[in-house]
Amino acid sequence: MKVIIVGAGFGGLAVANTLKNSNLDVLLIDKNNYHLFQPLLYQVAVSALSPGDIAYPIRGIFKNTKNIRVLMEKVVIVDLRSRRVSVSGGETFDYDYLVLAPGAETSYFGNVEWKDYAVALKSLPDALAIREKILSTFEEAEKLAYKNLDISKHLTFIIVGGGPTGVELSGAIAELIYKTILPDFPLLRHKKINVILIDAGNRLLSSYPEELSEYTYKSLTSLGVKIYLNTRVTSIEKNVIRTTQGTFSAFNIFWAAGNIASPLLKSLPVKLDRQGRVVVNPDLSIPGFPDAFVIGDSASFTDKNGETLPAIAPVAMQQGKHVGKIILEGLPFGLRPNFVYRDKGTMATIGKARAVAYLKGQSFKGWFAWLLWSLVHILFLIGFRNKIRVMLEWIWYYITNKSGARLIVNAFRKDNSKNC
Amino acid sequence: MKVIIVGAGFGGLAVANTLKNSNLDVLLIDKNNYHLFQPLLYQVAVSALSPGDIAYPIRGIFKNTKNIRVLMEKVVIVDLRSRRVSVSGGETFDYDYLVLAPGAETSYFGNVEWKDYAVALKSLPDALAIREKILSTFEEAEKLAYKNLDISKHLTFIIVGGGPTGVELSGAIAELIYKTILPDFPLLRHKKINVILIDAGNRLLSSYPEELSEYTYKSLTSLGVKIYLNTRVTSIEKNVIRTTQGTFSAFNIFWAAGNIASPLLKSLPVKLDRQGRVVVNPDLSIPGFPDAFVIGDSASFTDKNGETLPAIAPVAMQQGKHVGKIILEGLPFGLRPNFVYRDKGTMATIGKARAVAYLKGQSFKGWFAWLLWSLVHILFLIGFRNKIRVMLEWIWYYITNKSGARLIVNAFRKDNSKNC
Repeated sequence: MKVIIVGAGFGGLAVANTLKNSNLDVLLIDKNNYHLFQPLLYQVAVSALSPGDIAYPIRGIFKNTKNIRVLMEKVVIVDLRSRRVSVSGGETFDYDYLVLAPGAETSYFGNVEWKDYAVALKSLPDALAIREKILSTFEEAEKLAYKNLDISKHLTFIIVGGGPTGVELSGAIAELIYKTILPDFPLLRHKKINVILIDAGNRLLSSYPEELSEYTYKSLTSLGVKIYLNTRVTSIEKNVIRTTQGTFSAFNIFWAAGNIASPLLKSLPVKLDRQGRVVVNPDLSIPGFPDAFVIGDSASFTDKNGETLPAIAPVAMQQGKHVGKIILEGLPFGLRPNFVYRDKGTMATIGKARAVAYLKGQSFKGWFAWLLWSLVHILFLIGFRNKIRVMLEWIWYYITNKSGARLIVNAFRKDNSKNC
Repeated sequence: MKVIIVGAGFGGLAVANTLKNSNLDVLLIDKNNYHLFQPLLYQVAVSALSPGDIAYPIRGIFKNTKNIRVLMEKVVIVDLRSRRVSVSGGETFDYDYLVLAPGAETSYFGNVEWKDYAVALKSLPDALAIREKILSTFEEAEKLAYKNLDISKHLTFIIVGGGPTGVELSGAIAELIYKTILPDFPLLRHKKINVILIDAGNRLLSSYPEELSEYTYKSLTSLGVKIYLNTRVTSIEKNVIRTTQGTFSAFNIFWAAGNIASPLLKSLPVKLDRQGRVVVNPDLSIPGFPDAFVIGDSASFTDKNGETLPAIAPVAMQQGKHVGKIILEGLPFGLRPNFVYRDKGTMATIGKARAVAYLKGQSFKGWFAWLLWSLVHILFLIGFRNKIRVMLEWIWYYITNKSGARLIVNAFRKDNSKNC
C-alpha cells in the first residue's frame, strides 16, 4: 500500500512517525529539505536564534527508516479521482492513501498589494530578510544620526495582528532592540523607539482567557510597546500604514494578522471555508474521498461543541497521529473513530522571562509560565542537538542579553537597496 | 588625533584593540557588520558549522569603547596626499593615521571567466552558496537515481589548489559526504563519490615541512580524495575542467588556488607586487607616506632572510599590534622599530581527528595535532558564546557524525536553476 504525505511540518511528520517501520510504502514530499519549528521563527527574525537552531533536515529524521522515502519537491497537482499527485519536476506518483498537510500562508484579507509593504513571517527566508532589514535599519540610522538627520521612520516598528504571533514578535522586537541592538549603536543608545502593535479586536490574544489578555497588555506596555486595539488597517503603502486611528510612517512594517490555507487546495473538487481550508469529515478525510485526508492548518475541523479548532502545532500533531493510526490499521470509512482534540493548553511568550500559559483550566503568568513555555518548546524541537543549542542560546541570552545572530549576510536583499 | 582603520578582519581588529580606550579617535570601517573567522569558513560550506558560529558583530566587540566608532560602509577612494578616505555612501573622512587592512580576494590568475564555473570560498555568502549547491546536488541525484539515470557529474567534486584551504576543503567534503550526507540518501548511500584535488606543484602544503606534506597526502587519500599533483588547469567551462592530466566533468568545482589583494589598493600611487599587494617598509608604512600603513593579506612584507610573509591570520594579528603601538606612541618614522614576525607555527586539518601542525620546530601529526588545532582555533574565536558553540558543535560531530547545518534555505541561489 502506498501512502503519500504532502508536507513535513508538524502534521506531516506526525503521520510519518506513526507509519515508521510498518509495511506501508510512504512517500513524504516537502518543498524544503528541512522541518521548520515555526513557533520559534520570530526569534530568528530578531536575531535571537539562528536558522540552524530551529530547522532540521527531514532526511536526517528518516534516514534509517526503510519504508519512508523523502522527496524534496513542490506538489503542483492533486488528482483525487485518479489517486495521483504531480510535482513541479514533472513526475507523478500514485497513492492508495493521501495525507495533505501543506500548512498555511499569509493572508492580507484580499489586499494582495500590501504584501510588498508589510512583511510576513512564515518561512526561514522571511525571517532572515526581516533580520537583515532590522539590522540594516539601525546601521543607516546611526549614519544619519551623525549628521543630525531625521531618523523617526528608522526607529518606528509596526506590527499588525494581536494574536500569539504578533504579541511574541512585538515583545521580542521591543526587548531585543532596547537591550541588545541599541547598546551597539552609541548615537542611538538613548533614543526612544516606537514599537506599535495594532489589532482590530478589543483585546490581545482573543482566543485566550481574558485575564491573560490583560496581563499581556500590561507586560507589552512595560516593554515599551504601544498598543492600538479596535483599530483597523485601511491601507498600506511603502513605509506608510493608514488605520482608523491615524496614519503611521515606518521603514519596518510587519504583518501577523491572518492566515490562509495553502493554494494547493484550491484545485480540489471540495468545499473550502473562508480561509481556504478544506472542511473535513469527523475522521479528517475529505468528503467524498475517504482515503484522502487533510490535517493541520489546511484543515477546518469543527468539534462537538461547534468550535473550529485553531491553527496551532498541537492540533496538527494530534491530527497526524489520528490519521496515521487509521491508515496503519486500514480501517474502512464506517469503522473509523472521530478525531477528538485534547487541549493540553496554550502559551505565548512576551519577551524574556515573561509569558502567559493556560493549561488544564489554570492560567499561569510571569516567570513560571515562561519556564513552562521554554521547556515545552525545547521538548518538541526535533533533534537532541537542536534542543541543547536552543537551551544554551536562551540561557546565554537570559544572563547576558547578548543575542548571537546579529548578522547581515546581504545575500538576502534582492535589490540591496537602502530604505531611503 | 584621528585614526581610520579600513577592514575589521584579524589585522584591523588587532589595531583597534591596541588603540582601545586611548585618547585617539578611531573610525573602524568594514563593508560587513561582522568579523569573520575565515579559517573556519570551509566548515560552513560543508554544513558542519553555521554562519553565526564563526561571525561576530563588530559593534558588539566595541560597544563599550568610547573612542572607537564603527561604520558599516565600503571604502571606495583612498587619497593618501590629502589624507582623506571616501565611502560608497558619499561621505569623506580625514585622518592623521590610516591603516589599510582590506584583506584579499580570489585570484583566477587572470582567467576572470573561470569565476562563473569554479566557486571560491572567501566570504559568508560564498560559503552558504556552496553549502546549498552541495546539498541540492544530492537532492537531484537521489531523484535521478530512482530513474536509474546517470549521476556521475553529481557525485564528482573537484577542488583546485593544494594549499591549506584546498586541503581542508577537500578533506572536509570527502568526510562529510561519506559520513553525514550520503547516509541521508538511501539510493546513494553505497555509491562511490569522486573527490579530486588538483595542484600544479609537486607536493601539497608546499610551505610546510615535507614530512607533513606526505602525511597529508596519505590521510586525504585514505579519506577517499584522489590527488593529482604536477597538474595545471588549462581551462574551466560550465561543469568541465581541463588540465594537463586530462578533462574532468562535475557539477561542483571549487577554486582554492590563488589570492590577490583587495582592488582598493590599485588606486594608490605605490608599487604593488604580483599579487597586487603593497610592498611595505620595515615598519609596515607605505613608502613615501609614513603615516599610512598596510597590514595583513594586502601587504607584502619581506623579512631579514628575504622571505615574504604568508597571508595568514597570525601575521595579520601581529602586524596589527605592531602598527597599533607605533600609532599609540606617536613614534616618528625614524624611531619606529621594524616589524618582526614570531612564527608560532602553522597547522592544517584533514577531516575529523586528523591534522598536521608545525610548532617551535617540531612537527605533529594525527590526533594530537588535531586537538591542538581545535584548541588554537577556539581560543582565537571572538566571543565566549561562539567558543562554546563551536566547541559543542565539534564535540557533537565527533561523537555522532551528524553535522548540524544541512539546510537549503534557497535564498542564495540567484537563479534557483538546477544543475542539469
